[in-house]
Amino acid sequence: MMRSKVLSLVPRATGACRTMSTATKLTTVEVNDKTGIATLTMNRPPVNGLNLELLRDLHKSIEEIEGNKSRGLILTSSNATIFSAGLDILEMYKPDKERIRAFWTSLQDVWLALYGSSVPTAAAINGHSPAGGCLLATACEYRVMLPKFTIGLNETKLGIVAPKWFMASFLSVLPRREAERALNQGRMFTTDEALQIGLVDEAASTKEEALDKCAQFIGTFAKVNPLARSLTKQQLRAVELEQLENERAQDLEKFLFFINQPAVQKGLGIYLESLKKKAKN
Amino acid sequence: MMRSKVLSLVPRATGACRTMSTATKLTTVEVNDKTGIATLTMNRPPVNGLNLELLRDLHKSIEEIEGNKSRGLILTSSNATIFSAGLDILEMYKPDKERIRAFWTSLQDVWLALYGSSVPTAAAINGHSPAGGCLLATACEYRVMLPKFTIGLNETKLGIVAPKWFMASFLSVLPRREAERALNQGRMFTTDEALQIGLVDEAASTKEEALDKCAQFIGTFAKVNPLARSLTKQQLRAVELEQLENERAQDLEKFLFFINQPAVQKGLGIYLESLKKKAKN
Amino acid sequence: MMRSKVLSLVPRATGACRTMSTATKLTTVEVNDKTGIATLTMNRPPVNGLNLELLRDLHKSIEEIEGNKSRGLILTSSNATIFSAGLDILEMYKPDKERIRAFWTSLQDVWLALYGSSVPTAAAINGHSPAGGCLLATACEYRVMLPKFTIGLNETKLGIVAPKWFMASFLSVLPRREAERALNQGRMFTTDEALQIGLVDEAASTKEEALDKCAQFIGTFAKVNPLARSLTKQQLRAVELEQLENERAQDLEKFLFFINQPAVQKGLGIYLESLKKKAKN
Repeated sequence: MMRSKVLSLVPRATGACRTMSTATKLTTVEVNDKTGIATLTMNRPPVNGLNLELLRDLHKSIEEIEGNKSRGLILTSSNATIFSAGLDILEMYKPDKERIRAFWTSLQDVWLALYGSSVPTAAAINGHSPAGGCLLATACEYRVMLPKFTIGLNETKLGIVAPKWFMASFLSVLPRREAERALNQGRMFTTDEALQIGLVDEAASTKEEALDKCAQFIGTFAKVNPLARSLTKQQLRAVELEQLENERAQDLEKFLFFINQPAVQKGLGIYLESLKKKAKN
Repeated sequence: MMRSKVLSLVPRATGACRTMSTATKLTTVEVNDKTGIATLTMNRPPVNGLNLELLRDLHKSIEEIEGNKSRGLILTSSNATIFSAGLDILEMYKPDKERIRAFWTSLQDVWLALYGSSVPTAAAINGHSPAGGCLLATACEYRVMLPKFTIGLNETKLGIVAPKWFMASFLSVLPRREAERALNQGRMFTTDEALQIGLVDEAASTKEEALDKCAQFIGTFAKVNPLARSLTKQQLRAVELEQLENERAQDLEKFLFFINQPAVQKGLGIYLESLKKKAKN
Repeated sequence: MMRSKVLSLVPRATGACRTMSTATKLTTVEVNDKTGIATLTMNRPPVNGLNLELLRDLHKSIEEIEGNKSRGLILTSSNATIFSAGLDILEMYKPDKERIRAFWTSLQDVWLALYGSSVPTAAAINGHSPAGGCLLATACEYRVMLPKFTIGLNETKLGIVAPKWFMASFLSVLPRREAERALNQGRMFTTDEALQIGLVDEAASTKEEALDKCAQFIGTFAKVNPLARSLTKQQLRAVELEQLENERAQDLEKFLFFINQPAVQKGLGIYLESLKKKAKN
């Protein structure tokens, strides 16, 4: 099954060192001189699994783009078939006590920075985008997706529960009825289905075309006052942003309690074993 | 007018005894051995009017299904043309002081149990479904409806106001603009209109087909972790559930105050008379 | 650019006196004897700019319609091409300290009265309807629009931020994703686009036809109990109404703080100069 390979929570490449130098750059930021638009690329082979280091780099890159007067931010992946496979399961299996707190806190940081970004944001979804990958995409204001990939919050399929702010991101894009059903089912949408239901805004046949369409969306703000636009967006997103900001500590403890359940650890272990076997074949 | 006959708040059959033995079963629960899905059938002739006894049996049956590890719950009717005609008007006309409190409390119990049910829920709407009938249907996660029937919250047509939780159930299914207009108008939707607007999810030509489609919906959770699914649903529905749970006493008093207004009692009396005349013709 | 001429915040006609006698009638109310529907017409040439006097007259007229047992309210304009061009910029440029407080307070009054009106409301949008014009239209329950005009909350294009209650009005009509994007972009929708997205409910080719369609909408309440209908609407709109009612003073101070920023005053001055130049050509 192609799909099962990218079902969120993927392990780091075999032999990868657990701690990485902070100098390791897992993201790149390129600003187009002509348009002033910054492209933020996730680059953590093999599947852009969101581990502590990638999350920290993402957070730094978003803050950099906020600070450098970019006209907009496009989030994409260097991988040919995967946007991001979601949270790195190795961060959650037999976790180090300190590191897992930093991991979850960084995930909160990234979402708060991206969902609340003062610049226009768009995702060029050039590959599969389950779970945490879908979270990043729905935190943006616009989504363009390449054909024959899948996107969705498939947490229930993995035996976990998407936190309230994952749901808030999702509900800001989809109608309530469709969002609730998809979240309960852990449904992954194909590009066509995602377009049909409004989970993505446009399809594109190549990454270049996706980046172009994202840039066109950001271009619709050319004649808009940037401060007024930014304050308008903040006001609209204040409810969801404030909810997480006010509950960060509580949200972290809830995650830690859940992840440390023996049944959850056992499930993650079985899942990791199955991935190892697949990798050998 | 066919429609007027089923406009909610219908009287019990002439000569029916006001109090019924608690042994009287007004609902049946059948669990399919193969699928593990429980079918909950309302069976209170002539129109499944929701009186205290039917509500108590519904509540017991939902709790039974919660407890017996069913894979899902399908709500339907034994009646060939009516799903449920809504609240039994005889419970509200010249009401007994104690009984009417138990009646409304049971209605709250049923909605809380159904809207918050830990198992997947679907309604096979095999007949007209006004007011309280629509409440039960929208408390489920999925709706399949037979042709040429009607569904809606038509309270304003009856001179009453749907409580906040009736509205919450309705708003969780329809877009705000459509929901508000329909609630103000007390609009009854035909099967085709309900399908078009999203008030029901599928049409079916027979009851068997409706039950099958409901079972297929419940089947979409086959590969989903049941605990994760249940917690996800609870989290999504927490706002509406907590609102009623926190306001149960207040909601009861509001209903009692309203129903005891002389103008309301007079209106119910006139309505009952008109139904008696129809029954004679 | 035709569109730029009607971009909200328009100046009063050259030479217009700043203060007007309260006796000046800038609105008319006509009640149809047959239908019982009141038509409320804005009549402040050249563009129905919402200044203190027009807002006060609007508020009085809405209260009059509430009081005279009308069956419904249709809001429209006496102008052939403009419904309302929004807030009168002269109220905000180098404002008088007392008058600007009265101005904003009157705008709050008008919205609270219209959004919370106990009678069914509809807008016959017979011309362009930017910013404050769109606010009035979305406060109604139904919208019929003539072809080739534009409607939207274009505040960000003017360098300002729509208050929370402008957004609430807009969000009660449009899906969240579409509403957020339009608000950020300050997007003006053509009649066709507005119809497509649901910002208006019907198109009409003449003002007469628009008024007829509004009357037909109000006619859908003919068999609905007026008190039950009114209480249902209040309950549905309570969240938005209470939010502004609880924050009126705070909302006023926020507006005053914003409008008195030197950069905002400078921007308004430049905009006024550009309008004067256009008027000379």
